[in-house]
Amino acid sequence: MRSGSRRPLFVSRIHSASMLDTDSPRVRAVLPLLYVAWADGVLTPSEAETIRGHLRTQEWLDASTREAICDHLDPQSPPTPTQYFRWIRTLRDGAGDAAVTTRSSLAELGMALANVGGDGTALPEASRRALEDIEAALNIDGEEVVRDLLGERPEPSPVEPEAPFDTDAMRRLLDGPHAELREDIRTLLQDPVFEYQDGLGTEAYREQVLRWCEHLADQGLGALAYPDAYGGGGDMEKFIVAFETLAYHDLSLVVKFGVQFGLFGGSIHHLGTERHHEEYLDRVGTLDLPGCFAMTEWGHGSNVRELETTARYDPTTEEFVINTPHDGARKEWIGNAAAHGQVATVFAQLRTDGEEHGVHAFLVPIRADDGTPKPRVRIEDCGEKVGLNGVDNGRLWFDQVRIPRANLLDRYAQVAPDGTYDSPIPSSGKRFFTMLSTLIGGRISVARAGLSATKSGLTIAVRYGNRRRQFGPKDEPEVPLLDYRTHKRRLLPRLATTYALHFALDDLTARFARKGRGESLEAIEAEANALKAYATWHTSATLQEAREACGGQGYRADTRIGRLRADTDVFTTFEGDNTVLMLQVAKGLLSDFQREFRDMNLWGMARLVADEVATQVQELNPVVTRTTDPDHLRALPFQQSALTYRAEKQLQNVGRRLQRRIDDGMEPFDAFVDVQDHLVQCARADAERVILERFADAVEGVEDADLRETLTTLRRLFALSRIEADLDWFLEAGYVSGSKAKAIRGAVNDLCDEVRPQAEALVNAFGIPDALLGAPIATKPGPGPK
Amino acid sequence: MRSGSRRPLFVSRIHSASMLDTDSPRVRAVLPLLYVAWADGVLTPSEAETIRGHLRTQEWLDASTREAICDHLDPQSPPTPTQYFRWIRTLRDGAGDAAVTTRSSLAELGMALANVGGDGTALPEASRRALEDIEAALNIDGEEVVRDLLGERPEPSPVEPEAPFDTDAMRRLLDGPHAELREDIRTLLQDPVFEYQDGLGTEAYREQVLRWCEHLADQGLGALAYPDAYGGGGDMEKFIVAFETLAYHDLSLVVKFGVQFGLFGGSIHHLGTERHHEEYLDRVGTLDLPGCFAMTEWGHGSNVRELETTARYDPTTEEFVINTPHDGARKEWIGNAAAHGQVATVFAQLRTDGEEHGVHAFLVPIRADDGTPKPRVRIEDCGEKVGLNGVDNGRLWFDQVRIPRANLLDRYAQVAPDGTYDSPIPSSGKRFFTMLSTLIGGRISVARAGLSATKSGLTIAVRYGNRRRQFGPKDEPEVPLLDYRTHKRRLLPRLATTYALHFALDDLTARFARKGRGESLEAIEAEANALKAYATWHTSATLQEAREACGGQGYRADTRIGRLRADTDVFTTFEGDNTVLMLQVAKGLLSDFQREFRDMNLWGMARLVADEVATQVQELNPVVTRTTDPDHLRALPFQQSALTYRAEKQLQNVGRRLQRRIDDGMEPFDAFVDVQDHLVQCARADAERVILERFADAVEGVEDADLRETLTTLRRLFALSRIEADLDWFLEAGYVSGSKAKAIRGAVNDLCDEVRPQAEALVNAFGIPDALLGAPIATKPGPGPK
Repeated sequence: MRSGSRRPLFVSRIHSASMLDTDSPRVRAVLPLLYVAWADGVLTPSEAETIRGHLRTQEWLDASTREAICDHLDPQSPPTPTQYFRWIRTLRDGAGDAAVTTRSSLAELGMALANVGGDGTALPEASRRALEDIEAALNIDGEEVVRDLLGERPEPSPVEPEAPFDTDAMRRLLDGPHAELREDIRTLLQDPVFEYQDGLGTEAYREQVLRWCEHLADQGLGALAYPDAYGGGGDMEKFIVAFETLAYHDLSLVVKFGVQFGLFGGSIHHLGTERHHEEYLDRVGTLDLPGCFAMTEWGHGSNVRELETTARYDPTTEEFVINTPHDGARKEWIGNAAAHGQVATVFAQLRTDGEEHGVHAFLVPIRADDGTPKPRVRIEDCGEKVGLNGVDNGRLWFDQVRIPRANLLDRYAQVAPDGTYDSPIPSSGKRFFTMLSTLIGGRISVARAGLSATKSGLTIAVRYGNRRRQFGPKDEPEVPLLDYRTHKRRLLPRLATTYALHFALDDLTARFARKGRGESLEAIEAEANALKAYATWHTSATLQEAREACGGQGYRADTRIGRLRADTDVFTTFEGDNTVLMLQVAKGLLSDFQREFRDMNLWGMARLVADEVATQVQELNPVVTRTTDPDHLRALPFQQSALTYRAEKQLQNVGRRLQRRIDDGMEPFDAFVDVQDHLVQCARADAERVILERFADAVEGVEDADLRETLTTLRRLFALSRIEADLDWFLEAGYVSGSKAKAIRGAVNDLCDEVRPQAEALVNAFGIPDALLGAPIATKPGPGPK
Repeated sequence: MRSGSRRPLFVSRIHSASMLDTDSPRVRAVLPLLYVAWADGVLTPSEAETIRGHLRTQEWLDASTREAICDHLDPQSPPTPTQYFRWIRTLRDGAGDAAVTTRSSLAELGMALANVGGDGTALPEASRRALEDIEAALNIDGEEVVRDLLGERPEPSPVEPEAPFDTDAMRRLLDGPHAELREDIRTLLQDPVFEYQDGLGTEAYREQVLRWCEHLADQGLGALAYPDAYGGGGDMEKFIVAFETLAYHDLSLVVKFGVQFGLFGGSIHHLGTERHHEEYLDRVGTLDLPGCFAMTEWGHGSNVRELETTARYDPTTEEFVINTPHDGARKEWIGNAAAHGQVATVFAQLRTDGEEHGVHAFLVPIRADDGTPKPRVRIEDCGEKVGLNGVDNGRLWFDQVRIPRANLLDRYAQVAPDGTYDSPIPSSGKRFFTMLSTLIGGRISVARAGLSATKSGLTIAVRYGNRRRQFGPKDEPEVPLLDYRTHKRRLLPRLATTYALHFALDDLTARFARKGRGESLEAIEAEANALKAYATWHTSATLQEAREACGGQGYRADTRIGRLRADTDVFTTFEGDNTVLMLQVAKGLLSDFQREFRDMNLWGMARLVADEVATQVQELNPVVTRTTDPDHLRALPFQQSALTYRAEKQLQNVGRRLQRRIDDGMEPFDAFVDVQDHLVQCARADAERVILERFADAVEGVEDADLRETLTTLRRLFALSRIEADLDWFLEAGYVSGSKAKAIRGAVNDLCDEVRPQAEALVNAFGIPDALLGAPIATKPGPGPK
């Protein structure tokens, strides 16, 4: 628990709790504790439970006072700023009047307050002991709190001598507009109820994660994205930021959280209409109704348009009949299905009127309150996984399960009682893509959660590399690992990429949350697909590198990097397989040159691309391709034009390749398959171009000169290390000469050297609390000197 | 159990078991069962136990017959070939004489034999039932066995229509000179006692792995490398081949096996002398004495020369005093220490005569028979790890532990009773490296075990990619994943590298086993270091790729790829951190140019390297650097000269870089640190040169034209994909032009297309039994057709 100024809460709805009577001596006695419980803007589960538990047994408190106080101990019902300010004034006035001894603890202060300003009734001695017990249980330094309250701050501790920039300022910059939400979640996750539990068996682990999710729901976090009426502020950006911050904790928690509130709740929110919201959203947001998002099938993971579960409408009973026609059509990998889910959003091929209408979403009850499967629903446990074993993934089969007509999530298509089908989107293809676009938020969230895990891994590895010494010059002390060229090389460019992705994803999230304003959803979706794939590949590779960089100590389970890697491993696969996403991105880039792509034959499209791009790709200047001047290499214009040139040229090349194949009579499908590697390359190149652009824009907007300088160094390292990684292409294309290539390698080394002394401050600026980091090798003393 | 011809066993010692009296009706009755139990050359634990267990309760067998039969049911005491041939003759003769009904089962055959050729005593009916019971318990098709025995083989099943080569022949080629040993181990590991046990807690898992190790010891596998007198044949090559084959099973098993028999036993074998062998080796080989290899310390993992545990000699009691001076000097990660080890080979700084003599190895008892630590020894559990949780890694502290003088492993240095120190190797540096050279076998073993895991992962991913269909041309069936360009690209070059490494490691193992003949140990050590690092990096990366290539199904624990990856993850770190090993390799390459390196200053060395290599590096031919002719690209000379040129040129460059830095006044240590990335690059380049050379030599020696052709395609794919991966270097060096680079990419694609139809046969040729593979996605039917 930290002291500090009043900040807004997770929840936008602030219940108007009864006003506290601050003249009552009993209320005044408890007021310092109420103040401190809310001081950091979060009432964590343990705080609420501690105070409530103690008050429950206090006979000196009458029932109505107790109730009034407990009214102010609901995490979702914080005091209003006005109320809170009144409390502070009361406390300050009272403390000013009282004797010096009152400053030694909150209990003393409370007792003094009760006596000096109240109605004159003296409190029994039992009340002092009760207050002291609560204070002790909350584990607060009361004296410090009182000092803070009275504005008597201690001398600031001296700034770290070699801090190259203000770490706190960098942290605030990274935290961005929702800094307070992030800070609140960090506080919340340090509550003892969220302590990591080692060695739990699968079943106990799943229950633990469910309980954690309930605590998050109690705080109002689950409903953040839902409309006001259902407990949220309708703020998707906040939800994603919360999701990202939760990912500093156990990743099973964040995935379960995402399944329940993001996918299941999101499907009702976005694919359903008002009556679905009314019936379900409140219970989803509070986790009273655990649910599933049942899209993937065993036979169809990526190609979901072809999934085979059927939903036939029966007008005689006004029901849909949900059916799994064969084993390959079972729903597979469904989160929340194996143990907890009671309802599932099931995607199935709708047939009514004797016609097929494509994939639609239906709410299907799968489990009774007592946990047993509903009749005609078969549920199987997917069993142990490589990671994320706190999430209960399951399989679902439906044997002609009947559900009411109202259970169709009918925002984009309606079925009348007589079975007449109607949709505002006439093309079934377009309708399907509109429905799928609800997945965009999930993709951004996964990318950001993966990035949080990357930050944890890098924090651990960089701190360890800064502490751990091995080898050294003859007769001199051993050298920290991070001083070694190979060690800098393996970690620091990845740190730069992590910063770059942070800003790129931040920007994308904000634009996604504003969707419909000034930008097409297709453009945002394409960027989300590209960044999801790029970021999660970065996560996998970086965590592997970080694990190896910690040597044997990195193999300890409690170092957590291995766990993070195993948990995030599937991030490259779920919410869209990365390779499939990148192929989609590339096709989108191609069709951007030709809006009528779908109506045009492929031959025409490819020819057009080849021609159009050709005129756009800049000519090469033979002097520039040979320049090895460090200033030129480090400057943004060179870096941007290199990444832009590559993206455009690769697109042009792939267009030409397609054209050639189709000219030769190849079938379009085969032609695309034949150039897949180039398509993926294209999409990657474009992703890097975009990331650099976003990162550079963000850096430019930073006002603090120190931060801007540090971030500029990172931007240079990101851009040049990406160019270096693809030097074969740049050399082959004649974009750089051999000597320039060599100079780029040298510049990357120099930038690694520049970042090296700032490395620990840069990971500390991620602001991951040690309690969440785990990893004794990064938070506890090492083997020490000889 | 398979039938087949008689093959040698794991063990070189064949006990001369008592001859069986094949005239005794009782013996004749049991003979068919004895025959079949030994038919595949291995008597597995379950077979022995089944037959022994049944015989124990048979009253119709007198004690002496029972004993004589049981004598022939000891895994380490097989019948001699002569004996076995006599059994077969007896059986054939008897079967030929007997009625047709006798052919329906081994029990019938046994009863018939007892009657027709015996001494005329009829056997009771109980004996028939007993024989039938045993036959049923062994789960054999008796009729088929009898048919085999009489040489009446069924028609061979038709060859797979599209088999591009003979998979069995390829398997025999890969299995090499120790094919029979490999085959025996495959058979053994399919015995039910080795079935994978899921969901065991850590403690139970460790016990399971210990029991598995005991079964291996019972078969004589543990002692393979020890001298004849201690149960082995002194054959290190066989030991390594066994180790590699065991790695198709759970990797905790193979690591525990390696710790006990390879590291602990190996240290006694190689660092100890006759009296240590006599006192310990027998008990180590049978696992009666579980032990540890305690080298690594918390503070010193890579830089073991500086480890801090001390061994002071006390002449008054003729003891060594082993001590852990501070917490950083505790022994860390010691396998077998947390639960099972009773003795540890402890590496410590020897002090006697008031002088320091450097690191030596001592046998220190750490645990009493009842499992409690010895006095003054502290043992701590390292706890959960990322993988290999079946191995009990622990920490050890010694508080002035006294051990007898005889416990110094004194092959390379002796301490007289009065404390006088004597060593045949005067330089303490050289002595240390000689002792460490005992680790070479471990490095080769780790590389090969990692390669086995890679083969398992590729087998699973290739088979899945061949079965799993997703997307396809409009209105046509979906396409197998492995037909996609991106999918071929991610798996097939890695398959080629796996084949290349197989042959390179085979060659290295054979040369290592012959060490001292024709080649310096330093050269073998350098190659072992390079290949260990190269191969284990390949393992990590390939298993990651294989996991992703299986999509969500790859995340299932029972798909086993994730488990293999987690278990092998530390292979890049243990037995020498890969980066540290590669730096050593590069320094070795540099000093190869200058034998007197150690006595010469670095400046002289670097200059010499720069000059000498310069004269060796070939001149570039401007026509050749532009040739895009596929025949040229696919031919060995181009591939070999490219990899050789790169290796030499990079060495020359790094020599120049060092020279420049030292000319500029940099300290040698700093100069080396500054060029570390180039040193690692050098070592990698040299490793690829060597691997290609070994692979090409092996392919050239293959007689079967089909196999040679297939392997040649793989050799091409390996070489060109490695060149492709480093095209930036080749372009930068002017070794290939832009158009040639493009042609190389095209050639890699073409080679992937050529390998694609053979891919499944190529992984099947690894010969990994389905029972060991696990992975229902690769061994059971998939979702099936629409």
